Parts: sequence; structure tokens; C-alpha cells
Amino acid sequence: MNILVTLNENYVGPLKVMLWSLFFNNPGESFRVYLIHSSISDQSVAELEAFVSKKGHTLHVIRVQDDWFTDAPVVLHYSKEMYYRLLAYKLLPAELEKALYLDPDILVINPIRELYDTDVSEYLFGAAYHEMISVKEINMVRLNAYEMEEYFNTGVLLMNLTLQRQKLNEEDVFAYINKHKSRLILPDQDVLNALYGKETERLNEFQYNYDARYYQYYKFLSDGEIDMDYVMRHTVILHFCGKRKPWHSNYIGKFHSLYKHYETLALREN
Amino acid sequence: MNILVTLNENYVGPLKVMLWSLFFNNPGESFRVYLIHSSISDQSVAELEAFVSKKGHTLHVIRVQDDWFTDAPVVLHYSKEMYYRLLAYKLLPAELEKALYLDPDILVINPIRELYDTDVSEYLFGAAYHEMISVKEINMVRLNAYEMEEYFNTGVLLMNLTLQRQKLNEEDVFAYINKHKSRLILPDQDVLNALYGKETERLNEFQYNYDARYYQYYKFLSDGEIDMDYVMRHTVILHFCGKRKPWHSNYIGKFHSLYKHYETLALREN
Repeated sequence: MNILVTLNENYVGPLKVMLWSLFFNNPGESFRVYLIHSSISDQSVAELEAFVSKKGHTLHVIRVQDDWFTDAPVVLHYSKEMYYRLLAYKLLPAELEKALYLDPDILVINPIRELYDTDVSEYLFGAAYHEMISVKEINMVRLNAYEMEEYFNTGVLLMNLTLQRQKLNEEDVFAYINKHKSRLILPDQDVLNALYGKETERLNEFQYNYDARYYQYYKFLSDGEIDMDYVMRHTVILHFCGKRKPWHSNYIGKFHSLYKHYETLALREN
Repeated sequence: MNILVTLNENYVGPLKVMLWSLFFNNPGESFRVYLIHSSISDQSVAELEAFVSKKGHTLHVIRVQDDWFTDAPVVLHYSKEMYYRLLAYKLLPAELEKALYLDPDILVINPIRELYDTDVSEYLFGAAYHEMISVKEINMVRLNAYEMEEYFNTGVLLMNLTLQRQKLNEEDVFAYINKHKSRLILPDQDVLNALYGKETERLNEFQYNYDARYYQYYKFLSDGEIDMDYVMRHTVILHFCGKRKPWHSNYIGKFHSLYKHYETLALREN
């Protein structure tokens, strides 16, 4: 399976935890991990390579050069890295037909094969809606009179690279961003929703992009069905969305112990 | 290492989870698991044997016969199983010098070698104090005017079987129980504390018998040092003490997700 990650130096630690959980819960699978970045140190890249190959998988590093994305508009405090996910189809090897993008603030706790094999042949992306977005996000959206027909979360993106090469266009992305510069909240997510929401296949949120902040909400919403038992048996991707991260010392949350245990395991084996 | 477990049919599921966590977090170690019981079905025993041997370890079953412990006093609703832990030295093979007893409501989340190698050559047992006991327990103790100089928890017991064969005596145990029948709270724990507390080496509670109910209390007690990070890196044995167990559907607790994930892993591999 082709896994795509894009991040900066600050997320190298969490990335290891995410990859460790992916490898551990998918024995018998072989992963090609593509890392698109522009700022990670050579030492960290070398350590990552060793980490991945020790587990029998391969890391493929694509370092974005300064003279790429020169036409891309710069938005506030966001770096150009926000484009790597949407325009990965241009950076990944031409022969790749499919890839699964994963945020580094994720734990993979069950086999990922069914997700990877989801048929997105008619779609550009596969992604999960997040039904619940935080009050703050809603307020920002209201403030910006932003249309909210669809709201896919881009932390887990199944990519139909073949179709993307035919239909995606960086000029569209740049034009959209230029036009909405002042009211983008989460740039790449907003762009995907605005430009490609209708060409995105909807994935099951509870299985493939479970927002770790909303245990109580999901349980309530499902009349108790989506309890801890359900999550541990059926959820493949636990996503630690939001500003508070489980690797911060003041984190509080239902999956704190699970995350920290995986962190320990990932470090122990390294 | 020699591991001892004693339980009835109801705890076979949790035992698998405990053993799975023990094996998983102790790669390269070889375990001889001794099971002392009187009521587990042949089918469950066979499944346990397969489960243990699949992982490269061995299960040794000691079925207690009806005509053993005939002199043992019967206490209220407690079964004779309460004696198996204290009198294991009589039931285990004569050549065994040391064993580590573990309750089934435990997760082993780090290597256990240092605990097992703790020098108890001058002691009958190694066990952890639980500084904090529940208000209910304290009240019961007060009610019974029970002396509380020491209060070892018997969920994790390092056993010096050689010395036990010389110094332990089932008549002492039976006599103590007969005398205090009406005011025993947790029979085997009370007996150990009353008769053998002074010959028990104190183990570090935070490492070797961390009561999963008291995350906040431990953190407070340690000025924040014993936080989730500490627990995941240093705690070897997480003990789910008390009536509410993490395999019950209404359980709430800091280590709920971790326990349920281990449960899933133990089932997945079986």
C-alpha cells in the first residue's frame, strides 16, 4: 500500500507513533511510505528511514525545492506545505495510481486493508465527513458566511491519483485561494471541500476518521452503540483532531493512555 | 519465569488479556504459566493451553481435588479458591523456587524482568502497599476495629517458594481465618497482612501494582511526576482493582481505551 505523509520537523515524533501503529496493526502488509516535505533535517529523515526499514517497509522522500510552487499564493501564517496534500499527484511518482494520505496525529488501531481497497475509481478523493465540528469552527464559518453543505476532514484522504492527474489543476487551487484568502480557516480542507467536495467519496467517519475528542458525542449520537467496545473493534483510524494533542503533557482525553502507550512502544522498538 | 494464576471460569477472558499483554511486552522471555483452579471447564483449559503455546510459552494446569483443603474453614460467600494463592507453595511442583502471582484484572505494559529478579531471598513474599484504599474499605476496617499497620495488596505477589515451604503453615492460616471469620474483608489479603506482613518485601506500588482507579490521586501525590507519561514508561503492572472492571460495558476510567485495545488484540490473535 502507498501511504503519503506531509509534515514539518515538529511532527516527526508523532509520525513515528502513527507509523508504528500502522505497521503493528497490519502485519503481513507491505507499505511504501511517501514523505513530502521541505524542512525536515537530514538527520531526522535518516532516522525515519531506519525506523521504517527496520519494520520491513520503505520510505520514499520527496523534498520540495524552493522553486516549486512559486505561483502559489501565500496565506497568512500558513506555509506552502498546505499545498503538498492537494497537489501530491504532481509530486508522487507518475506510476502511482492510489495513495492513502494520513495525518501524523493519528493512531491506526485496526487493519487498514478495507479502507485502502475502497472503490474510489469514480472519485478524486475518499474522505470522511466530520458531522461535528467545534463551536469555534462553526462561529468562524458563520463569521465568514462560508457555505457548509459539505465538510470533509482532510486528515485521512484516499487519493485516486490517476483521476487527479486528469482533473485536478493547480491553477484552480491557486485561484480559489487567492479569491478567498482572507476567510480560509483550514486552507487545504476548505479548498478540498469547495472545489472537490462533490467528487469526493464519503468514508465512514466512525471507522476511518474517528475524532478522538468526541467519544461522548458519538456514543450519544448512536444510542450507545459506538462505545469503547465498538471503537476498539471497528475503528481503524483514531484522529486526534484539534489543538490539544495527546503528546502534550496537559492533554486530557478518553484515548490518552492508549496514545501514550503507543508512543512508548514506538520509542522502545526504535 | 514462573507465573501463577488462580481463577474461576468467569475470569478466563480477562486472563487471556492479561497473558497477552505479558507476552507482548516481554519479547524474548519464556514463561511457564501455572494455573491452579477447581472449576474451569475442560474446553476453556484447552483453549487457554492453545493460546499460551501459540505464543511460545507453556501452561501447567493444577486442578485442585475435592478432598484437598478439607480442614479449611469456609467463610461466608468466599470459595476455597481464596486459599490457592496463599498455599500455592503446596500445590506447585516441589522444584520451583520462585513464582510471580498475577491477578487476571491486570495489564502488563512494560518488561517484567526487574520485578521478577527482585531479591526476596529473606522474605516470604514481595508485594506492593496500596497507600490509598477506598473509603468503603476504610470504613469496614474501622467497623471491625481491624489493625492497619500494613496493607499489602495481593494482586501481585512475588513468591519465595523455597522459604514458604519452610515457614508457611496451612494450620496457621486456617486458625487465623477461623478466629477472624466474621470480620474478614478480603480474606487472602487480610491473612497475608496479618500473618506475613512483616515477612513481605515492599514493592514499588507505582511500578508494580498501579491501581488504575487512582490516576488523579497518584499524580497529585507526586506533584505531577506520575503522569500519563510516567505511567506508560515506568509502570509495569496496571491493576484494575475494585468492583468496576474495564471489560464491563459501563466502565469509565483513564485506562479504559488501553484495556479495550488489549482485549481486542488478545482476541484478534486467538
